[in-house]
Amino acid sequence: MDLKDLHKEYKKYLGKKVEIEGWIKNHRKQKEFGFIDFNDGTCFKNIQVMYTNLLKEFEEITKLAIGSAIKVVGTLIESEGSGQLYEIKAESILLLGGVDEDYPLQSKGRPTREFLRSVGYLRPRTNLFQAVFRIRSVAAQAIHEYFQRHNYVYVHTPLITTTDCEGSDQMFKITTLDMNHIPMVDGVADFREDLFGRPTYITGSGQLHGETFAMAYKKIYTFGPTFRTENSNTKTHANEFWMIEPEIAFCDLNGLMDIEEEMLKFIVQYVLEKCPDEIDFCNQFVSKGLKEKLTKLVEAKFTRITHHEAVDILKKADVKWEFAPDYDEDIAKEHEKYITEYFDGPVFITDWPKDIKAWYMKVNADGKTVAAVDLEVPEAGELMGGSQREEDYDKLVARSKEMNVDMDAISWYLNLRRFGTCYHSGFGMGFERLIIYLTGVENIRDAIPYPRTPGSCEF
Amino acid sequence: MDLKDLHKEYKKYLGKKVEIEGWIKNHRKQKEFGFIDFNDGTCFKNIQVMYTNLLKEFEEITKLAIGSAIKVVGTLIESEGSGQLYEIKAESILLLGGVDEDYPLQSKGRPTREFLRSVGYLRPRTNLFQAVFRIRSVAAQAIHEYFQRHNYVYVHTPLITTTDCEGSDQMFKITTLDMNHIPMVDGVADFREDLFGRPTYITGSGQLHGETFAMAYKKIYTFGPTFRTENSNTKTHANEFWMIEPEIAFCDLNGLMDIEEEMLKFIVQYVLEKCPDEIDFCNQFVSKGLKEKLTKLVEAKFTRITHHEAVDILKKADVKWEFAPDYDEDIAKEHEKYITEYFDGPVFITDWPKDIKAWYMKVNADGKTVAAVDLEVPEAGELMGGSQREEDYDKLVARSKEMNVDMDAISWYLNLRRFGTCYHSGFGMGFERLIIYLTGVENIRDAIPYPRTPGSCEF
Repeated sequence: MDLKDLHKEYKKYLGKKVEIEGWIKNHRKQKEFGFIDFNDGTCFKNIQVMYTNLLKEFEEITKLAIGSAIKVVGTLIESEGSGQLYEIKAESILLLGGVDEDYPLQSKGRPTREFLRSVGYLRPRTNLFQAVFRIRSVAAQAIHEYFQRHNYVYVHTPLITTTDCEGSDQMFKITTLDMNHIPMVDGVADFREDLFGRPTYITGSGQLHGETFAMAYKKIYTFGPTFRTENSNTKTHANEFWMIEPEIAFCDLNGLMDIEEEMLKFIVQYVLEKCPDEIDFCNQFVSKGLKEKLTKLVEAKFTRITHHEAVDILKKADVKWEFAPDYDEDIAKEHEKYITEYFDGPVFITDWPKDIKAWYMKVNADGKTVAAVDLEVPEAGELMGGSQREEDYDKLVARSKEMNVDMDAISWYLNLRRFGTCYHSGFGMGFERLIIYLTGVENIRDAIPYPRTPGSCEF
Repeated sequence: MDLKDLHKEYKKYLGKKVEIEGWIKNHRKQKEFGFIDFNDGTCFKNIQVMYTNLLKEFEEITKLAIGSAIKVVGTLIESEGSGQLYEIKAESILLLGGVDEDYPLQSKGRPTREFLRSVGYLRPRTNLFQAVFRIRSVAAQAIHEYFQRHNYVYVHTPLITTTDCEGSDQMFKITTLDMNHIPMVDGVADFREDLFGRPTYITGSGQLHGETFAMAYKKIYTFGPTFRTENSNTKTHANEFWMIEPEIAFCDLNGLMDIEEEMLKFIVQYVLEKCPDEIDFCNQFVSKGLKEKLTKLVEAKFTRITHHEAVDILKKADVKWEFAPDYDEDIAKEHEKYITEYFDGPVFITDWPKDIKAWYMKVNADGKTVAAVDLEVPEAGELMGGSQREEDYDKLVARSKEMNVDMDAISWYLNLRRFGTCYHSGFGMGFERLIIYLTGVENIRDAIPYPRTPGSCEF
């Protein structure tokens, strides 16, 4: 049985015989009895296993080390000790797998997160990562449930691609050619013998493909891995990360913000309900005030201001900025922070200068800004970025030319504007950003099971 | 509003004004009135929009072509025509986006699937692919729901990897180096300037990483894209496909089969319930008997036989085989077909000759076979493949050496057997195989939105 089910229905099992397999989290032994903090990983909360020297294997049991896999057979009883309502009184404890002496998680004291990254394949066994990666799993499910309940179709956009909306200089090349003998013609690599017969990449976004499905299903979302080659070693950058990219036909920028807000609140509420122990742990040991922040978000009304209004506020602020706020420029991390603190909650910033945004965004009537929106949240900064897409063929072609987009590579995408085009919008949410927001861990390396960052591809 | 919601609660809307946006699927016009088959893509079933020449834009409306995006305002009324209970009587029909004359889906007659692949970005608008890709989305959700309900943690195993359980000769290389100027040292590519500073690949399986999480959470599953470089142009091979890889601690081969059977029945039942119109369509136009096959599966008891028993049956069969059945060999497609027909349902084949299976599988007491299992289903053949994993460090190391596995690359994986090891099992299910099984489409190119096959990476 799973410990999670035992906890959930412990009253049903009180006085009954139970059999459970899992690992030793902690072990205190005395002369005549011992206590094992036991968990099988199906829930955050351990259960206490009590054993006495009436068991014939008593001596061996007392020697069992933290991390050992065991099978426990016993009776669920009301606990006499403080700290728990019930515990298992063992009738037998069978060792399934011990731990060698060099087990890196056996030492007392709390290991640093840097150290735990160096044993990344073991870190999910620690309390911190048990919490973080279960929250990650539950948040993923919340996302699927939100979209499926609202009639969206989940689309698996391709990973291998010849086109990309962010530009191929940011993409990993993939090949089946022998890297020691790349065939060359006139000093240029010849891809005719490569599996696809042409240069190919792994994608940085599913948006363009997502739009083709939105033109068939109205409401779609993607949820998959994405790749960027950015050679940047910061807390917020990874070269492999997961992204959610919804795309909605017959939806303008205001409609998009409604969806973003509703979705985020749904996810947060869902995680608060399904992971109370994990959130409590993070609240206590990772980020004080986390729980209050999340609870508050569910009730908050998200502010909506334009980029111009945001810059107004930043210019009026009595702050010495590292980067001067500018109506024509992006806003910096320090600005994001100020704005979310100023409004004490999440803020949508809309209508950005067109020159700093992507070619497919709809240009507003002013000719200077685009119908784009970033959602800034307290502490995590930019959590989602979206826009209304240009749905007019001629305008999109003109804008693509202005921005030097490779028109041949995206002719199919442009064609969407010739065949039943309609106003539509979409956004992207970096999943690790969300996990950072939900757990309070600060480093993206601690929000994804096996982080891939420049120079680092262990395990 | 979404058409899906209108259909679901049409009684609530009868006599009321409705506003809906979507596309024209069909259009029949007469002198004084016209009928539009309308759909917004949120469900399979169209709705009829009726309009008359009392509308002042009557003339323009009659000219609207199939595929155009429109906004309809009207009243939901009981239909006088046969074929539907209700329809929308239009008060206004506004053209949002027309179609150019070269719209490939406007012609009469049913386009071939080959042709539709050549306009892959438009094909989800056809009835066939509307059905297939919604079933795909719903089946994905069924998988998540099954595992989440049963206390599994969803794990995002890495795509970029230096190790792989299937061998790196089957993997795509990825690089940020300039393919026209690969740095060389002594005739060998020098990866020091590559982003990760070493040769890297995109993965063919998440299993090894999945096991590390099973040792922390007991029950985990992956669901993500996977890549193989196989240069093979068949109906069942693609170079990019999605895979589900559950891994369960404290689970032996019999327990694994229980899970596989329960999961598959859950998915099929879920799809039958959520996609009745799509399944009916596939049953009628793609694969006669599909619905019966699926309904029967939910009630079926899956047969369990050993590989040896399967070969016995094949040898006794009065069939002239292309490939002679052999106790030491894999079984061929023709054998799979015979076995599922012989038992008239799904068949688990267990205990395979160890030499044709992977190095991490648990060798049985006979020393000749491994605790592996393939699930064969009628028509689709092998749908899942799994095994109990070798949990003993010394045995696993010995077997890895025998099979020439790069031990350095997987030292972390081997370490799992030194730190709280336990018996555990897992399986992989190709998601496109499942979609082929659920829809009756025969070609993997029609089961994935943007197929990637040798020489073919359009769009």
